Formats: sequence, structure tokens, C-alpha cells
Amino acid sequence: MVLVDIGNTHFHIWQDGKINHFKKIQSFKDDVYYISVNRQKELELLALNPKAVNIKDYVKFDTDYKGLGIDRIMACKSIIDGVVVDAGSAITIDIMQKGFHKGGIIMPGIYAFKKAFGTISEVLKLNEKIITDEKLPNSTNDALNMGSVGAIKCIIEKYAKEKNLFFTGSDGKFLSKMFSNAEYIEDLVFRGMLITIKEMEKK
Amino acid sequence: MVLVDIGNTHFHIWQDGKINHFKKIQSFKDDVYYISVNRQKELELLALNPKAVNIKDYVKFDTDYKGLGIDRIMACKSIIDGVVVDAGSAITIDIMQKGFHKGGIIMPGIYAFKKAFGTISEVLKLNEKIITDEKLPNSTNDALNMGSVGAIKCIIEKYAKEKNLFFTGSDGKFLSKMFSNAEYIEDLVFRGMLITIKEMEKK
Repeated sequence: MVLVDIGNTHFHIWQDGKINHFKKIQSFKDDVYYISVNRQKELELLALNPKAVNIKDYVKFDTDYKGLGIDRIMACKSIIDGVVVDAGSAITIDIMQKGFHKGGIIMPGIYAFKKAFGTISEVLKLNEKIITDEKLPNSTNDALNMGSVGAIKCIIEKYAKEKNLFFTGSDGKFLSKMFSNAEYIEDLVFRGMLITIKEMEKK
Repeated sequence: MVLVDIGNTHFHIWQDGKINHFKKIQSFKDDVYYISVNRQKELELLALNPKAVNIKDYVKFDTDYKGLGIDRIMACKSIIDGVVVDAGSAITIDIMQKGFHKGGIIMPGIYAFKKAFGTISEVLKLNEKIITDEKLPNSTNDALNMGSVGAIKCIIEKYAKEKNLFFTGSDGKFLSKMFSNAEYIEDLVFRGMLITIKEMEKK
């Protein structure tokens, strides 16, 4: 079995418990189950894997949120209580309470912040670093870091309070280092996909 | 006398107490004093106004911040105590205490957030609005708004605490509405420039 999480920039592929990230997709011999937030990339997958199954329509998930992305649903699905942060091209922050999705936030990813600063002025070059103290920045790089990494931290803290934090995504490990009650789970989205596939098989 | 504040996207022009914003610069008959954060636009000003005076080298300003932008210095110069927020292409947040600049933060401006979201995915369309309560978003637009306008608010609140807030810049009026102890001052940068010119004349 192969699981494919189609993001906006990469195909994230789970195979026998191992995860890899590709810009291009290949043809697989095993059964393929997938989720997608990018229609163009989904068509690329289906062109080479016409029998691949989109598991979106089989997922059970409790939320009042209108139009919650399938990748966010999968990242949250294995978490009963806590804050789920998926830090990729975008950073999504979702709050789970007693198995119910309470709502969430979308921020630009760290790379998007870098690009945004670079577009405003070529002198605004961000070299991101984790924030170890909250003192006011006194240099351009610290000012940019507080206005991006610090802003991400600020919003997570605001809604996390005493809750446990679960990070995933390409910048998840990096961001998780700023919190004491945080865990980085590389395969969080795939855990949700595996649960969903098991639920499908029960039917 | 004409004052010109050259930003990254516009020439902001003060003339007889009135402020206008232009993409292109003209030739003025009166004396021109200016500051600039954009070398290319500065050359455009000087081509048409060769006698224009860059007041950067005449300004007195107390800070430990390395490389503080001249526009930020001018916005802060007339404020003794408080938080100065200049919300344009970038949003700068600077803290003044007893006439000393304590440090500051640089965030992407609201338009930069919009562009960043749009670059990540075409479904991420931000329609910014002021945040009147802090409840968790339950729709994509509220999630994007909290991840941009909410993140700006979060960082300002973190460093402002009980201090008075002074907003300027194209999105300054909009952002100021989220704070009770806030004032929007359209000509804040020009007030700093006028003080500096008076200081030059005393010498």
C-alpha cells in the first residue's frame, strides 16, 4: 500500500512506514490511496496511477469549520486533545478538544514569509531562527525573525495555552523547538489516512 | 518647502500640510527635503530635483538598533513614550521609552500577506477585516484573517502592553481600530522630518 499526500508544492509519499517528498510523481505497483489540495498535481498522480483512491469521501470528522482542507483533517484525525500545527508552504494551526475540531488558523509558511520580505525590499533578508527569549529585536534580522517566526509563535501560544502541541510538516521540527509541551510527528497526516482506510475497510 | 518620504512603492509627499502619494515623482519649485529607503526611487527624485536635500545625515536619534531604517526613525522621532506602528508595504513596530528607541519588529504588510497566501494556493484569498473577538476561526477567510491581521495584532499586543499606540501608513487607520489606546497620525513621518529640519537650522 502507498499513501500519497498531495500538497501545493510536493507529493508526500508513505511506503512501508517510510516518508519521502517528491516534486514529480511515479507509477506504483501497490494500491495507492491519496488526499489532495492541488487539482493539477492530483491529475498528474491519476495519469500514472489511474486506480488510485481519493479517500476524502470516506473520512468521518467532526467540525463546524466550513471548507476545512483534507490535509488538515488527516493531521487532526489521530489527535483527541491538543493543537495540531502543520508547517509547510502554509502553516495551519488547528485545535482539537475531545475529538472535536474547534477551529483553526492559516498563516504563510516560513518560506512564504522569506519571499514576502524579499518582494518588499531586497534588504529584508530573513534568516529564520528559533526564538529563545522575547526581548525586543535590535537588528534587522532579529526584527524580521520576530515578525515571522515570532508571529507564528505568538498565535500558537495565544490559542494553545496549556494544551499539548503536535507539529508536522517540513518546518514542524524547527518550530516545535520553541515549545516545551510539543512533539514532532513526521507521519501525522499519514496516521490519519491509515485510520480512515481502516474505517473504510470496516464498512 | 516640500517633504518627500520615499518608500518602496510610493513617493509620499507633504506640501503645506497636505499629504499625497504618487508612483512617479515630479519637479518642484520649492526647496525639497527627503528621506529614502529605495535607492532607485531616490535617483528618480534627484534627476528631477537635483538640489533636494537628504536629511538622513542630520538626524539625532537614540537607539541601540543596528541599521534602523530612516523612515522608522522619522516616525518615532516625535514620540517620547509609546509604540509606533507604520503599516505600509511592510509593517514596522517600534517601541519608544523616555525618548529612547528600545527596539522593533518588521512584519509583512497586509498586501504582502495577501500576495503570500495567493502564491501558496489560489483558494487562499484573504479579505482582511478588523478582529473584534478572539474566538477560533471556523471558515477559510477567518482563518486567513487571524493568520495575518490577527498575527499583527498578537505581536503588537505582546510588546505594547499598557503603552499608547501611534499608527501611520496606508493600513495604519485600519489596524488602529483594533486597539483602544491607539491614535492614527497620518503625518507622523513628516512630523519627524520637520523636527529634524528645525534641528538642522539651529546649527
